[in-house]
Amino acid sequence: MRKTIVIAGLGLIGGSLALALRGFEGCRLVGVDTDRDTLEFAREHSFVNEATQDAQVALGNADLVFLCLRPEGIVRFMEEHAGHFKAGAVITDVAGIKSAIVAAAERLPETVEFLGGHPMAGKEKSGIRNADGRLFRGAHYIVTPSEKTSSATLFLMERIARHMGCLDLVQTTPERHDERIAYTSQVMHVIAAAICDDQVLFDCRGFEGGSFRDCTRVAALDVPLWTELFSMNTGALCGVLSRLEDNLRLYRETLERGDREELREKLTYSSERKRHMILE
Amino acid sequence: MRKTIVIAGLGLIGGSLALALRGFEGCRLVGVDTDRDTLEFAREHSFVNEATQDAQVALGNADLVFLCLRPEGIVRFMEEHAGHFKAGAVITDVAGIKSAIVAAAERLPETVEFLGGHPMAGKEKSGIRNADGRLFRGAHYIVTPSEKTSSATLFLMERIARHMGCLDLVQTTPERHDERIAYTSQVMHVIAAAICDDQVLFDCRGFEGGSFRDCTRVAALDVPLWTELFSMNTGALCGVLSRLEDNLRLYRETLERGDREELREKLTYSSERKRHMILE
Repeated sequence: MRKTIVIAGLGLIGGSLALALRGFEGCRLVGVDTDRDTLEFAREHSFVNEATQDAQVALGNADLVFLCLRPEGIVRFMEEHAGHFKAGAVITDVAGIKSAIVAAAERLPETVEFLGGHPMAGKEKSGIRNADGRLFRGAHYIVTPSEKTSSATLFLMERIARHMGCLDLVQTTPERHDERIAYTSQVMHVIAAAICDDQVLFDCRGFEGGSFRDCTRVAALDVPLWTELFSMNTGALCGVLSRLEDNLRLYRETLERGDREELREKLTYSSERKRHMILE
Repeated sequence: MRKTIVIAGLGLIGGSLALALRGFEGCRLVGVDTDRDTLEFAREHSFVNEATQDAQVALGNADLVFLCLRPEGIVRFMEEHAGHFKAGAVITDVAGIKSAIVAAAERLPETVEFLGGHPMAGKEKSGIRNADGRLFRGAHYIVTPSEKTSSATLFLMERIARHMGCLDLVQTTPERHDERIAYTSQVMHVIAAAICDDQVLFDCRGFEGGSFRDCTRVAALDVPLWTELFSMNTGALCGVLSRLEDNLRLYRETLERGDREELREKLTYSSERKRHMILE
């Protein structure tokens, strides 16, 4: 039977998801957004089969719902529309934090199944105009199944991840996701921001190389989104930041002592860990 | 007249330079290295017109010499071969630090002209087998001319940078280079290393996204090279590290206070600086 997939929120991720889901098992795609301009753009560029402001009607026909709003928007959307989902519907989200989302989803009716999700992709430009159907290629698609998650739903998400070109479907718990993501994603954004706070930034044009461009790329971030993501994962993020400050200080102190042998040992240790991470 | 260009040191940079210089104004390329295997590889893959262990003979015929050894290797090479350069030869180098190199070059005979150089390119794999003629495309080629540098030499380097596909030829002083590079390059490598020192590194497979891959890419660095580069620029690098530690701590303290408004303001400030840096 032809499935109806609703994408709530047609921003960068929702829009990219719509493009990436095209042709998935003959599904019908419905986009929901509150912004008229976004809906018009989605219609003109055939992102979806139908683009609407009416979430209630759309949800009433949806077999699968992707919540692609900001984290707090997702929580509010679930509260407002708890009674509008079709019985048997699967609901998933794409937020970069999972504990708070999964906790909020506990209040959804028993007739629907919620699965937390996080396709690990993004870029430093937001909105449907920057959407790209190839955004998820090679990315990990993380999901946080509970004991209530059906194998049919996991199988569906696996097929979707494959269709989107993702590298794999990674299963974990919400807590573990948030702890890991503080390290692999959030702190990278804080580093990029902190580097751009340096007084010499604008004096350094003409001196940027690949490492500078790569490291600071994500500093041009979506402020409201990342304010929410950081605020909803403060504990884990502060732990990683604190360890990073220590590790940087240890490098600085070795340099200040002029202890070249120790510097060489430290660089050997760090670079071998990196090579080990790549190889395995 | 057909110029002879000698490349001393056929590692990643020297080898890539040889490939990038192919066809430059009909020049004859001579590669010098102490490693037989490297010379054999250079010959087999036509990196140069001639590959030799005999630096003295090669230098005696060279109009232009690129010193592509590690920084201390460059200093030693200039000491050993000070008397072997042809009168009127131009000598340049590719090291990532400039003050110590330019100071050592002061002891070269008056009959030659030295110009410090740093084409801002590299990658995390060393040796001639990883050489790539496109390595310098889009990169800044920094040079540190003095009052003794002739306009003919600067014009030559401009043509070379263009031939290599560099973005531009940037002129600065050795001191300014080292100060700027501590920020745009060296600290990026320390960050990548410090991130890989984190205890959770190997538990995070499956959670890496683009920002993690980009930021840690350079951690798999050439240890002897970066031990030298850091050791020869300790003052500037420690200054940048210290400011980075402060900026990270300010982010962490804002997060710990749960001051969301301040977090939003800080992220707005940093991200606008990044956008400003890109646009101008």
